Amino acid sequence: MSFLDTLNTTTDRQHSLLCVGLDTVPDRLPDILRKEDNPVLTFNTAIIEATSDLVAAYKINTAFYEQDGSQGWETLERTLDAIPDTVIKILDAKRGDIGNTARMYAKAVFETLGADAVTVNPYLGGDAVEPFIEYSEKGTFVLCLTSNPGSRDFQHVSDGNETLYQLIARTVQGWNRHQNCGLVVGATHPEQLKEIRERTPDLPFLIPGLGAQGGDLESSVRYGTDERGGNALYNSSRGILYASSGADFADAARQQARAMNDAINGERTKGL
Amino acid sequence: MSFLDTLNTTTDRQHSLLCVGLDTVPDRLPDILRKEDNPVLTFNTAIIEATSDLVAAYKINTAFYEQDGSQGWETLERTLDAIPDTVIKILDAKRGDIGNTARMYAKAVFETLGADAVTVNPYLGGDAVEPFIEYSEKGTFVLCLTSNPGSRDFQHVSDGNETLYQLIARTVQGWNRHQNCGLVVGATHPEQLKEIRERTPDLPFLIPGLGAQGGDLESSVRYGTDERGGNALYNSSRGILYASSGADFADAARQQARAMNDAINGERTKGL
Repeated sequence: MSFLDTLNTTTDRQHSLLCVGLDTVPDRLPDILRKEDNPVLTFNTAIIEATSDLVAAYKINTAFYEQDGSQGWETLERTLDAIPDTVIKILDAKRGDIGNTARMYAKAVFETLGADAVTVNPYLGGDAVEPFIEYSEKGTFVLCLTSNPGSRDFQHVSDGNETLYQLIARTVQGWNRHQNCGLVVGATHPEQLKEIRERTPDLPFLIPGLGAQGGDLESSVRYGTDERGGNALYNSSRGILYASSGADFADAARQQARAMNDAINGERTKGL
Repeated sequence: MSFLDTLNTTTDRQHSLLCVGLDTVPDRLPDILRKEDNPVLTFNTAIIEATSDLVAAYKINTAFYEQDGSQGWETLERTLDAIPDTVIKILDAKRGDIGNTARMYAKAVFETLGADAVTVNPYLGGDAVEPFIEYSEKGTFVLCLTSNPGSRDFQHVSDGNETLYQLIARTVQGWNRHQNCGLVVGATHPEQLKEIRERTPDLPFLIPGLGAQGGDLESSVRYGTDERGGNALYNSSRGILYASSGADFADAARQQARAMNDAINGERTKGL
């Protein structure tokens, strides 16, 4: 089964395009967890249990675990293990290295960690991305237009015909022979989201930047989904994880995830 | 002391611009090590002991350790611990993420792992690099023009005035207020190496791509060093690590490192 099929089957069955980012910061954990052996793992497990019927995917950003070294990497492994197989596991690693080295990263992500999908950085070009794509049933989301202020610095460089992010979108389309490529496009750029969707109607989008980063849900769902109202994942991290700092943190996360999923589904159906 | 001062002091004292890349692959270890508890760590430690008086830096690429998960990450930590303080420790991580997340990566690299320098990917722009630069005594080498075939795909996009890699070189120059920024420029592009050196005469270069990747030592030393014949690090990985697959692997690595250091020093002095 291609990754595209896995994605669509999952979003249909879960009736959700929501992706929860497990960007867990020890400083922001509820006080009630501080005495646990591994507070981050306990927190993540509780969040997953409370939300897994409402989401299509979890996204784990490696940075938040690497800050704690090999112990953090172990927490990352155990968090991935806690995610049920009904939901897509995305490793938000943004890796990118020359072919020989990229093969090691692809093995790390898809074999050692067992993730279903990954984010990669296109700056090093085709041979840096190809080793990920060769895992034909796994998903590879290539950074296209990111959600942060720095996206202005280099991603908009234009040769007169197209910008760098447009060139990347077009190139990734060409890499998509296994139906397993996608793009990362930030919710903070609704006009460009619309334009990239028009240029690559069949690629799945992973869309971060809602909530704390200021992306607008309504426009990003309207412009980011395909003509069937799908083929996109909307990530929220802080807004769901830290919905409450009390003992009710998991319930509060569930309520927040449900509200966000309902809001996304409400917008999806409007355009159909 | 700025990173630039640390680099120049180290290369002067060691009389070396050589960087050995500890890209250790379990499959390529000498048979004699296979019974060790942690063959990769034993190998790395032996290579470091055999070569540390001949090099300016060691570069550890995270991919080779992540493929072994949390255990690999622990081997990475212990390898860094085995490097003497007389030599610069570069984490070749090529990380790049939005500001909030980049801060976690910078903490992971400079605090948790205690590296002296890092490689970063510029695609996400200034706020993705800034958290690394804020560690004013640590070095941040930004990918500019990489050594691999895929470097042609996006790094040469030009707006008519300058290419993307030229824009990045110029931008990094502007970020260099702490004298702690550098560029990664592949040895496989001698003409561009010359041109980037002319544009950024004061930035240190980290130059991979010699040996297995086909970069030419003579031209890359002539064009990559500054007017004093310094301010550059030349990386070699496979050519030194796997100089012998026998019991003499460490001696063979030492001989290879010495030969390469002599060759670099021979070229450095020619232009002065």
